[in-house]
This record gives sequence, C-alpha cells and structure tokens, in this order.
Amino acid sequence: MKKQNVRTLSLILCIFSYLLVGAAVFVALESDTESARKRMLEQKRAELRRKYRFTDGDYLELERVLRQAEPHRAGTQWRFAGSFYFAITVITTIGYGHAAPGTDAGKLFCMLYAGLGIPLTLVMFQSLGERMNTGVRFLLSRMKSALGLQRTEISTQNMVLVGVLSCLGTLCVGAAAFSHFESWTFFHAYYYCFITLTTIGFGDFVALQKKEDLQENQPYVLFSFIYILLGLTVIGAFLNLVVLRFLTLNTEDEKRDAAERASQRASLRASSQRRAPAFRRDSQTHSRTNLLSPQPTPHLRWFCSRIHLEHTSACRNTCAGCSVSSVSCRIHADTNNTAFSSPRSTLSAGLSFTTRRKSL
Amino acid sequence: MKKQNVRTLSLILCIFSYLLVGAAVFVALESDTESARKRMLEQKRAELRRKYRFTDGDYLELERVLRQAEPHRAGTQWRFAGSFYFAITVITTIGYGHAAPGTDAGKLFCMLYAGLGIPLTLVMFQSLGERMNTGVRFLLSRMKSALGLQRTEISTQNMVLVGVLSCLGTLCVGAAAFSHFESWTFFHAYYYCFITLTTIGFGDFVALQKKEDLQENQPYVLFSFIYILLGLTVIGAFLNLVVLRFLTLNTEDEKRDAAERASQRASLRASSQRRAPAFRRDSQTHSRTNLLSPQPTPHLRWFCSRIHLEHTSACRNTCAGCSVSSVSCRIHADTNNTAFSSPRSTLSAGLSFTTRRKSL
Repeated sequence: MKKQNVRTLSLILCIFSYLLVGAAVFVALESDTESARKRMLEQKRAELRRKYRFTDGDYLELERVLRQAEPHRAGTQWRFAGSFYFAITVITTIGYGHAAPGTDAGKLFCMLYAGLGIPLTLVMFQSLGERMNTGVRFLLSRMKSALGLQRTEISTQNMVLVGVLSCLGTLCVGAAAFSHFESWTFFHAYYYCFITLTTIGFGDFVALQKKEDLQENQPYVLFSFIYILLGLTVIGAFLNLVVLRFLTLNTEDEKRDAAERASQRASLRASSQRRAPAFRRDSQTHSRTNLLSPQPTPHLRWFCSRIHLEHTSACRNTCAGCSVSSVSCRIHADTNNTAFSSPRSTLSAGLSFTTRRKSL
Repeated sequence: MKKQNVRTLSLILCIFSYLLVGAAVFVALESDTESARKRMLEQKRAELRRKYRFTDGDYLELERVLRQAEPHRAGTQWRFAGSFYFAITVITTIGYGHAAPGTDAGKLFCMLYAGLGIPLTLVMFQSLGERMNTGVRFLLSRMKSALGLQRTEISTQNMVLVGVLSCLGTLCVGAAAFSHFESWTFFHAYYYCFITLTTIGFGDFVALQKKEDLQENQPYVLFSFIYILLGLTVIGAFLNLVVLRFLTLNTEDEKRDAAERASQRASLRASSQRRAPAFRRDSQTHSRTNLLSPQPTPHLRWFCSRIHLEHTSACRNTCAGCSVSSVSCRIHADTNNTAFSSPRSTLSAGLSFTTRRKSL
C-alpha cells in the first residue's frame, strides 16, 4: 500500500483511539461532579420556587430572561472595543461565544468575514512565527559566540526547547496578569490562557467581562488584545517549527511518486527511441526525456551521478497544485558519499527536463 | 528589506486593518439591536421582580442558580457520548463551551489532552484532506477521459472550483440535516455548520442539546459526530489545496537565502584557493565548494548550466529546522529556455556539495 495511504489510515486510527481514551477519562473526572451539582441546583431552584410560588409560565419566562441577559451582565458588547474583541475571536477562531451576532445580518457578515479573515490570519501568524524563529536562532547563535563556544550552530533540538519554554513562559505571564485583573486563581487564569491560545475558546472564562471593563479600562483592554495576538504568534512560531513539516508529507510523497512515474515513462520512451534509426534522433525536438540520452560520455555520466540528489526527510518539496508540471525535482543529497567514485551509468531517473534534444 | 520581512509586515498591517473594518461593521449591525434587547430584558426583569418582590439576595441567588443550571438544561453532558462530543470539540479546537470541565482535575487533563491532540489532529486532517484531493483529481481525470476530452490533466483552477463546491455542498447538507433535527431555520443551521467547520465554535447554536438527545438518539449522535469530522476533512482538503503553500513561503525564502550565502562563501573560498600553490589543490579534502572548480571543460560547463534549476514559485522546499545543512538546493527550472544554447560559463552559485575535491 502506498506510504501516504498507510500514514493517513494510521493517523485516523490514532485519532479515533485518542477520542475514545479522552472520552473515558472525562467521564471519570466530571460525571460525579456533574450529578452532584445538578442535584444541588435542583434543590435550590425548588426552594426558591416554593418560597415565591412562581407560576410555571412565569418561571419559564424568568429562566429565559435571565439566560438572554447573560451577555449583557458583562456590559455593552457591541461598541467599538467589544466589536474589535469579537472580530479577533472570529478570525483567530477562538470563538468564546461571550458575544455572538444576534441579528441575521450580523451572522451573515460574520460568515463572510471569517471566510476571508481566517486563511489570511493563518498565513500571517505562520509568517510572523517564522520571523520570530529566525530572530531567536540569530540571537542564540550570537549568545553562543559571546560565551566563547566553538560550535555556534543552533540545532532543531535547541529551537524546540526554546519554543517550549517560550510557550510556557507566555502562558505564565498571561496567567499572572489575568489572575490579577479578573480576580481568578492562577490555575484558572493559566487554563484561560491555554484555552485561548490554542484557539479552543470554550467561553467558560473570558477576559474583559467584568462590568464595563471594555468601555472604561482601556489599558487593560489594550493589554488583553496584544496578549492574545502575541501569544498566538508564539504558539504559531512553535507550530511552524515543529508541526508544519508534517502537514506537507503526503503532498511531497505524492509529487515524488508522480515524478518517478514520469521519469520511468521518459526512460522507456528514450530506450525505445534508441532502438529507432539513428538519423531520427537529432531531428527530434521538445521531447521530455532523460538528459543523459542518447549517449553520455563517461565524464558526464560520473558528473550526473554526483548530482543524483534527493530531498532528504527534513527537506521537502511542497508542490501542491503545482502548475509547473514540466520539471520534476528529485535530487538526492549525496552528503555521505563524499568520495569521487567511479562513474555510475545513469542519472537519477527523477531528473527530467523539457528540452530540445541535441547530441551532447 | 528582505522579502520575508516585507511580506510579514504587510500581513500584519493587513490583519490590523481587517480587524478595524470588521469591528466597525459589527458595531453598525449589532449595537442598536443590543441596546433594544437589553432594554426589553431589563423591563421584563423589573416586572417579574415587582410581581414576586424578590429580596436582593434571593434575586442574585436565583440568577446564579439559573446560570449554572444552563448546561444541565440540555441533559447529561458527561456520560460517554457527551464526553466523546466534548473530546471532539477539544482536539478540533471547535470548543463550543456548551460543556466545560467543572473540576480542576478535568481542566488539567483537558490542557494535557489538547496539547498532544491538537497537533495530531491538524496533521491527520491535512493528511486525509490531501488523500481526498488526490482521489478527486483522479476521478476528474477519468471523467474527462470518459467524456472523450483530449486534455485530461486537472489544473489547480479545476481543483479549487471543486473544492469550493464541496465546501458549500457540505455546509448545505449539514444545514438541511440540523434544521430538521434541531428545529432551526435553514439559515441558522447553515450558520451553525459554518461556525463549527471553521472551528470558531461560538456555542450560540450547538447540536445534540435537545433534552437527552445525547443519551437517547444514537443515530443522530452518530450522524453529528461523522458530519463534524468529515466536514472538517473537506475544509482541511480545501486548505491543503489553497492555503498550505503560503504557510511555508517565509521558511523557503529563508532557506534559499541561507543557501545563497553558503554558496557565495564557498565560491570565495574556492577562488582564494585557486590563487594558492597548485600542489595544495589535489590534497584538499572535504571542502564545501562549487563543483565546477577548478577547471570545468566547456561541455561540463554547458551541462551544468542546463541544470541551473531553481524552485519555481509553485514548488517550494520546506526545510524548517532542516538538520542536513551540507546540501544547498537551489535549482532553477529552465522550463522556458528549451534551446541548447552555447555553454554558459558557470554553474549556478546555488549548487554546492560536500565532496572530496579531485580534478575532473
């Protein structure tokens, strides 16, 4: 079975098992508390109903009114600051839901706004994250020189360690700040920052919801917006470093397979043409073919074997939807084989060009 | 200024402007309705308070009880089906918040669960999305053959069109189903599907929250889970096709720049060695150098100019954190220049290898 299919099926099985395990653990952790809390709330509700003798209609009405008043409890949501906050939660896909469009026009605009904004934001965070990684790599290299270390190259492991520490540091800074401003415990504030910066955004904890904070506490509003955007950049930088290469594995494998098939077809065609009468060879034009045909000199063959390069597992060619179909790029980095050994007979089957053929 | 920095700064400005525009539009669409609704709810609340003469304490207690009872209104959340549903909303980052961990242990496990689950899920959806794109490309190609068309290649534009139609189709199927099962309008159901499949997940509309659906309506529960996961795959496939290549632009440019700098250093070193006494040249080993030095033959020079390949804008090399530093891969696809013109004098400066040097 193709490698891409094996990889995909394994991932699906993996995720399915992960969901089953997660569900089982959440049941174990939450279900007793849920039952206890439900019983207690029922009891309190029953006491209040008995005390005030609500009619059924009035009780349902009261329930509805208090439920709908919930967003308003936190102040005005749809002035500029609140709308800007909401727009951030849309394009970053955090989506707390502390405020959501009430009108159908608002819902429609929200969908159009997200449709363009989300891909744009994804690209922006990856772009900024990559710049951040480059800057960190540069600084670490300078630090290593300043410390007088011989080897100043920064390995992937160094970068991953710095990435993990940055993410944890960002969460801790946010936790300290929000626990102070929102009067949450440190743990709850840390949980809020984690849920926000992973863009899950449950909405069980939402900053800027203490009465009129959005309107009256501008420094805190500014801090919250900057924290969310910077924090997402740090997470984006970490994802750029660690996860991004895995997102393109299948695409690269598919392109490599396509290149191999194209080269094999070209080689077969070239071999069949070699068996054709000699006078035809020089007159052929615009044939996609292996560059070594018809008859490479030994020197040329040796040289071409030196450039039998292939993308290594860490260097990938993402050609998703590549519109340049006439170059297949399969280059094997002969980084270990450093000896000039005797000429090998053929160029990598993966290297082919659209050229006019002419004897070398 | 470097291309990567220009690109990143432009994206930041772009997003910031996008947020400002979005905020302004949301204010215009929502703020009047918010004020009107707030006034109406205040009025109703005041009427009920006057009718039942709540004490302040009792009223606050009633408000708190009804707010906390909200998740329970929708039935039991933390049995297996509900926990599985919750686990899906965590690792896909939808995060409705209709249910959220109440215990600190649940919150802690949620963070650990998301920390591993989210990257795994990202990779899985991209992987599956790529397989889907490949399958669709194959089917379309077969359809073109079956229709007797001469050109059976599927262009990027074909795939993007199919992608857009698939996304819209998925949303419409979901909208039809959920409007039926949840008694929502088609528009609200479509909005729910959109907010879910973009992983925003406000939680203003959440499926499976009609009384005890999670426990009693297993076919509908199964449909909802499958719809969410398949729908995310379709969106993932579209992102894989359209957006993924842009996520790696900065990384590729950075690698290309690093390769150029390395080649330039190698060329400079090679030129300075050429000026050194002749007997030293053949004894040098393991020097990173341009393969054409010291003295390429005209045929070799011409050949090397043919392989002056460069990754085109559609074919990118993602080498984020690449640990193979000894090969720089700058190949310019000479796809337009198909003539075998006279030999050019030098190999692309971008092609260098770690080799033992020996006269050609």
